Amino acid sequence: MTDSGGPLIIIGGHEDKEGDKTILKEVAQRVNGGKLVIATVASHQPDGYFSTYQKAFGALGVDNLVELYVHERGETLEQETQSVFDDAAGIFFTGGDQLRISSQIGDTPVERMVRDIHARGGVIAGTSAGASVMSETMLVKGSSAESHRIGDLHMAPGLGLVRDVIIDQHFAERGRIGRLLGAVAQNPRVLGIGIDEDTAIVLEGCCFRVAGAGAVYIVDGSGVTRSNIAEASPERTLSMHDVRLHVLSHGDEFDLDQRRPLSKRD
Amino acid sequence: MTDSGGPLIIIGGHEDKEGDKTILKEVAQRVNGGKLVIATVASHQPDGYFSTYQKAFGALGVDNLVELYVHERGETLEQETQSVFDDAAGIFFTGGDQLRISSQIGDTPVERMVRDIHARGGVIAGTSAGASVMSETMLVKGSSAESHRIGDLHMAPGLGLVRDVIIDQHFAERGRIGRLLGAVAQNPRVLGIGIDEDTAIVLEGCCFRVAGAGAVYIVDGSGVTRSNIAEASPERTLSMHDVRLHVLSHGDEFDLDQRRPLSKRD
Repeated sequence: MTDSGGPLIIIGGHEDKEGDKTILKEVAQRVNGGKLVIATVASHQPDGYFSTYQKAFGALGVDNLVELYVHERGETLEQETQSVFDDAAGIFFTGGDQLRISSQIGDTPVERMVRDIHARGGVIAGTSAGASVMSETMLVKGSSAESHRIGDLHMAPGLGLVRDVIIDQHFAERGRIGRLLGAVAQNPRVLGIGIDEDTAIVLEGCCFRVAGAGAVYIVDGSGVTRSNIAEASPERTLSMHDVRLHVLSHGDEFDLDQRRPLSKRD
Repeated sequence: MTDSGGPLIIIGGHEDKEGDKTILKEVAQRVNGGKLVIATVASHQPDGYFSTYQKAFGALGVDNLVELYVHERGETLEQETQSVFDDAAGIFFTGGDQLRISSQIGDTPVERMVRDIHARGGVIAGTSAGASVMSETMLVKGSSAESHRIGDLHMAPGLGLVRDVIIDQHFAERGRIGRLLGAVAQNPRVLGIGIDEDTAIVLEGCCFRVAGAGAVYIVDGSGVTRSNIAEASPERTLSMHDVRLHVLSHGDEFDLDQRRPLSKRD
């Protein structure tokens, strides 16, 4: 499901930046003293993001941080923008609007540099919008805190660093099970992954491990016997029978190729 | 799962009282011109509840309404309280606190009268707290809009009109999938039923039909291969593998004995 590149750390938003920093530690370990690019591209107003992460990562010994921001897509062609990637050990995409990431850097030299770092084993992390954008098709908009209505979902092409999954974030906090079910109903080929706040999946090779305070929900639609997603009326509430659901928490592991939790020896 | 009594109409709260009144119509049809008891017992401040339902049911031709309220448990012994049940065709439990219903009328003559009406084929309806109280063991308190922590759940004995299920209400609106999963993890013998606002299940015999605007979520834990619910720490987030989940919407039918959605001929 992921190619053979470096680790992906996909975070459900609001990761702890002042206490144990469980999730940022996972990033810091993999940066391993190297340079980390903080990509604030998702935000329309990125002021303050970089300094917040500078403080949090600084406390974890990651001192070599640079910010990547583009006001306009054209800037991705400039040498000054591209130079932030020189010798980078990893990239961290902060939150905001996932469409801003894909529309500003998609199919530009910057995106190719992200792929290069991934291909040579560097860590790519993303939180909130930075999490959603990891998949090939990403969730952009949908209702929270209500059951899914067939016409409600908006999706768009993401960066495609991980295939055959759809990622949603702020999951339990914003009541997003309905929209993730709706996304999976559209094509059960994709596995739905809903990640709570202050919770992450650390994906290396075929498998990921859960880290953090909340839960990760896996929606597997492969056994679904009926859904009304292709029915005419967009106001119709979703029906979907025989969904397989896994709830994973800190330390749990999951094999994306087998679509199975790994058994625990605890 | 239900005995051979009359229909149960179990509503997730905030049922429409001014528009199509889809759910109240289901109640009105089954009252069929008879007397309906509006039991406002769940509320600490019942003022206004009765008049609201009087207006809504009046528009549906149900004119013979009486209110049941008890300030203290002792009142259930009084003839005046008991007389509201004379010739009643059905009972409607309004919202509030489910513990107030069970603690004020549990094991009293009033509860026996409720059972009598059910046994002789009368309709018993309940919304919100009035829905939760239908099951043998009822959910009383638990976290909303976050994943379930093992120690978070409070349950209590309900009226037991329907067995082997746990009912939760305001389901998608309050992000309650986590606590329903936690309840089912405690004993997968019980089937979890989460009902959205303005949505109901109409249970007759073994089967129910969904009515209303939202969805009904069925959490079937019979195939669960692992859960950490019995682990020591109450702060631990729930893990639960291989849950079967059904999402049902208006018109969908479900067989509680078989634990299966009925196939549709649409």
